[in-house]
Order: sequence, then C-alpha cells, then structure tokens
Amino acid sequence: MNWNTPEIPPLAKELEPVLRASIDGRTKPIGSLGRLEALALQLGLMQATVEPKLAGAAFVVAGDHGFAEDGVSPCPQAVTVQMVLNFLAGGAGINVFARQMGLPLKVVDAGVAAPLPAHPDLVPLSIRAGTRNARLERAMTMDEVDAALSGGESLVAQIAAEGKNAVIFGEMGIGNTASASLLMSALTGTPIAACTGRGAGHDDAGLAHKISILEAVVERHADVWAKPEPLDVLAAVGGLEIAVIVGGMLAAAERRMLIVNDGFIITAALLVAARLNPRVLDYTVFAHGSAEQAHAQLVAELGGKPLLDLGLRLGEGTGAALAWPLLEASVNFLAQMATFESAGVTVPTAP
Amino acid sequence: MNWNTPEIPPLAKELEPVLRASIDGRTKPIGSLGRLEALALQLGLMQATVEPKLAGAAFVVAGDHGFAEDGVSPCPQAVTVQMVLNFLAGGAGINVFARQMGLPLKVVDAGVAAPLPAHPDLVPLSIRAGTRNARLERAMTMDEVDAALSGGESLVAQIAAEGKNAVIFGEMGIGNTASASLLMSALTGTPIAACTGRGAGHDDAGLAHKISILEAVVERHADVWAKPEPLDVLAAVGGLEIAVIVGGMLAAAERRMLIVNDGFIITAALLVAARLNPRVLDYTVFAHGSAEQAHAQLVAELGGKPLLDLGLRLGEGTGAALAWPLLEASVNFLAQMATFESAGVTVPTAP
Repeated sequence: MNWNTPEIPPLAKELEPVLRASIDGRTKPIGSLGRLEALALQLGLMQATVEPKLAGAAFVVAGDHGFAEDGVSPCPQAVTVQMVLNFLAGGAGINVFARQMGLPLKVVDAGVAAPLPAHPDLVPLSIRAGTRNARLERAMTMDEVDAALSGGESLVAQIAAEGKNAVIFGEMGIGNTASASLLMSALTGTPIAACTGRGAGHDDAGLAHKISILEAVVERHADVWAKPEPLDVLAAVGGLEIAVIVGGMLAAAERRMLIVNDGFIITAALLVAARLNPRVLDYTVFAHGSAEQAHAQLVAELGGKPLLDLGLRLGEGTGAALAWPLLEASVNFLAQMATFESAGVTVPTAP
Repeated sequence: MNWNTPEIPPLAKELEPVLRASIDGRTKPIGSLGRLEALALQLGLMQATVEPKLAGAAFVVAGDHGFAEDGVSPCPQAVTVQMVLNFLAGGAGINVFARQMGLPLKVVDAGVAAPLPAHPDLVPLSIRAGTRNARLERAMTMDEVDAALSGGESLVAQIAAEGKNAVIFGEMGIGNTASASLLMSALTGTPIAACTGRGAGHDDAGLAHKISILEAVVERHADVWAKPEPLDVLAAVGGLEIAVIVGGMLAAAERRMLIVNDGFIITAALLVAARLNPRVLDYTVFAHGSAEQAHAQLVAELGGKPLLDLGLRLGEGTGAALAWPLLEASVNFLAQMATFESAGVTVPTAP
C-alpha cells in the first residue's frame, strides 16, 4: 500500500482566549449567537487565525456496489449512472443547492459500473467498474482501496491548490446505505439490524430482505468483524466512493481544511477516517441529522451535533450544502460586526 | 380607530395535489427533502401557484419601553438608540446576515426615546418617544396603537409595491422581552413568571427583579387580564415596535406574502396578530427556536415548528435571516430539479 494515514495538525488552542474575546466584543448579548459562536471559534482554531475565512468546494462521488444485484436497494443499479448523468446535466438536488450557495461542484467517478462520457465537470478516477459482491467475497482488494484513498487525496490537493479551505463530500451509489450500515456495524460493534434503514425508500418487506442480505455479508466476513481494522473493514464491505471520501477527508484535515459532514453514508466514511486518525473530527462540522435510521446513533458515536434537523435523506451532499450559509454566517459575523467600542454601544453587565 | 383587521385569503388548497405531484416527480427518493418539501408546498399554496418564487425584504423595528426605567432589562435604555445607529452604520448582526442573504434591510423608528438623524435606510414612524411605563398606566393609547398598526401596514405596502412577496421583521427595544412576556401571559393565560426569561442576559437576581416588576404590571392591568382582547392587551403592555409588527404581519398575510417569523418578541407580535385573525399563521414559517425561556411554549401555542435550533437569542430578525436560504432552497429545488422523466432516471418503486 502506497497510501499512509496522514498526520493531522492539532487545533491552535492557544488562540482560544483571543478568539473568545473577539466574539464577545461584538454588539450583541454575550453568547446570543449560540452555535454560530462555537462555529466561529472552531474555524479560528482550525485555521490557526483570529480572522477565519471560508472558501468551499463540493464533490459528489459515485460508485456502484456488487450486492446491488441482491436487492439491497429498492432501485436498480442503473440508477447510479443515470444520476451521474443528471449531476453532469445540472438537474439533481446537489446541483441546485451548490449553485444557490456558490459552491463549485465536481462529479467524481470512483467506480460506476457503466461507461461515462468525458465532461469538464467529471473527474474519472474509475478504479473499478463497481465493487465485488461483499456477500460472496471482499468488495475491494487492498490495491483498490489504496487507489481510492489516494484518489480522494488528489481531489482535495487540487481544490487546496485553488485556494479552497473547506470541502463537502456527497455520494451516489445504489446500495451504499447498505455498505454504510456494514461499516458502522463492524467498527462500532452494533448489530447489523440496528444499523440498517430504508435507504432510498424500502417498505417493510424490502427492509427485512436488506437486513437478511446484510446478515449474510456479516457472516461471510466474520473474521473481519472479530478484529475490525478500519482499512480491512473498508476493503471487505465498503464502497469505492466511500474509500475515496475517506482519503479525501483525511487529506482535508491534514491541510487544516474544514470538512462539512453530510448524511449517513458520508458519516460512515467519517467513521472509518476517524478510526484511522481521530483528529479528523476536530476539522469536521456535522451539517445535518439524516432521517435515515441509525444516522443519529452514528453521529453521537462520533461526538457530533448536527446543525440542521430537516428530515433530509437524499444524500449527494445536499444537507451539507444547505448548512453552508450557517458556516458563512459564523465567519461573517466575526469579520463584519461592529464591536461595542467601535459602535459606541454600552457594554451589557456581565451575567 | 381607523385601522381594521385585514381579511386574509385562504390558502389555495385546490393546488395541493398538483404541487405534491410536482414535488414527487423530481429526481430524488419521495419525501427525501423532508421539511423543504413541506415548505415548497406551503409557498405554492400561499402564492396560489405551482411555481412559487421568493423575493424578500427585512425590517428591524425599534421602540423604547417605559418600564425600562424599572430595570426590566440589564441594559440601559440608551442602548436602543445606540443600536439603531449601529444598524444604520451596517455593523449589527442583522446587517451582516441580511447582506449575506441578499435581503434589503430598512430600520424603522417606531418610537425610540431619542432623536435620530435622517438616513436613507431609516423609516421614521416616530409615533411617540417610547411607551409609557406599563407598571403605572397603559403603555399606549388606542390612537397610538392605531398609528402603529397602520404604520406597519405602510411598510409592507411599500415592499409589496416593489415586488417583494416575503417579509422578515426584526426588533430592537430595551425592555421588549418584558413586553413580549406580558403579551404572552395575557393572551395565553400563562402565569407571568413562566413567560419571563433572561432577555439580554439577566443573572438570577436580575431575573427575579424583572419578574417582580412584571407581576406589578399584571396587577395594574388586572381588568385587561380578566378579559384579554388583543388590541386592549397590546395597548396596555405592548410596545410601539411590536404594534407596528402586528400591523405589518397582518398586512403581509392579506397580500399572500410570506412572514418569516423570528424569536420571542416577534412571536409575541405574531400571537397578537393570530388572535386578531388566525389565518395569518397560514402565511408564516417559524424560522428558529430561540434560547429565550418561553419561546418554545409560545411557538407550540401557535402550532409552529422552527426550522433552525441554534441557541440564538439576539433578536433583530437574525434567526429569520439565517433561515432564509432554506426557504430559497425550497423554491429552487422545485424550480430547477430535473424530473424522473426529463432526466431519464428510473422511478423508484413506491414505498
């Protein structure tokens, strides 16, 4: 394996007192901007500056899953490539929200099981035309995982070179909530049924079928469940798009960049990343709580608290894009609000 | 009284099936945009169209309160005019967020107890230099309430003429959480102590003092509490800025405009408006749950469910401005997302 887990710098904790004083000096009751104040502080500590700024970019990373053939999703596998073409045409949810928020968006083919046309917005990593069926064998070889992790790093290196300091990862891949449930089960020791939800819209029978397939996957990889090493788990039951995102998240934190975490699948990638280097969480903001069963538990496992709770379960990075204005607001109030002194406003008595 | 409670048109319920079909036809699992889907539906029904659009404007309405002299706020009354000057200079929280969200902002002098300079962004309603002390007498005469309600209507008529179809009201006024608590108590029958919180940052002693003053106000107006008519309550214990906002909200709903509701004081104005014409609530979205004690109960009383829960308690309309991108996102997904048919994406099996 050529890829190595990146070193991640610690937060610049020494700046906390001066950042807090700057936040508290603005013309508002102390603490009255609530979580925006905590975000401004976190961004300052991440960027090691008292004047944090934000410049973000988004990737929607697509890959197919071998066990889609077993019916783990209510959608046929062909929907993955159909949605990738929809992303490239600008018609999907993430396109709409990325445009609204002024976030440049690239589509990444991590391993779609169908050929794709060249397109200026498409990054073809194309590691393999979908994973193997994890019910029968390991989804990926270590060489494929290696290529995916490095591919994720290359995405982040590119936007970092363009001056970005924040990244949103979204995903598309029929079957990938199943993969995320497996990663969660193996790495947190939670029974697979408790990690499994309705994904794109299973009814009760579909959900029961999905769980039965995933129980067979767990049985097939009992050796991995017995001793769950993050990269081993990723290779056995992960996805190409998930592995790209794991590599991308760690590369972002290595560069002191903000990771705006999205829904269930992206949080499963973050779980893998955090088991490789827990410091990645210092650079993460949890954008939203997904309606997908088990997301709340997974977020709690990682110590996160979502900014938004809107019953979203679309994926693609949509929840992260929708939270983006709140992150911008946190740097904007710190950069633009007057101080009590500059505005000549009487300082309130400290509570 | 010249002002009459406006008639408010009903929602265009007949459009609900076609709006739902349009929402469900977009390339996403059905229901996967959660509350954004409900917002898109509500906006369509409000505007009586299957293609809702949004154009918003914000007002921060300021007024002083007679009982500020009793120490109901930890801040001196002079902070009201200091903050109005800060708004006009562009340095307050609402300035920062309105700029970020592209919302034009006007500052309204409903009754600040100090002279203000002319300024292009200042609307001088100047009904009276602050309310009377409600602990001793009625805060406003009915003529003053009348002028304030009509003043609010004129604000909304102006932006409607400019093509706006959504309005954010924010407020500034030392002592106005006390006024809001009194309105809530009188109109919901809740004991005043349960309606009263720390406002701009009272400590325990300050809060106890505030409650003792407000108990004296309730006693002074026992006749109003015995038979709480909305305008009577407003005159007895309301504020000039609150009355302007009540008039503005009803005028907005009359014109099928969206009201983006903010924190505790604005919600108290909404309560008064809803007791005058409950249909105003059909045109309201609850932007955020304030950290001010009693806001959650007041929102529940009005059947609302806040979009954001960020621990905000700044007022000024900041929570409403921060929720604005979510409202834009709801109309954007409906306007811009491809349909399954247009994008050639396989329709998922209905759950």
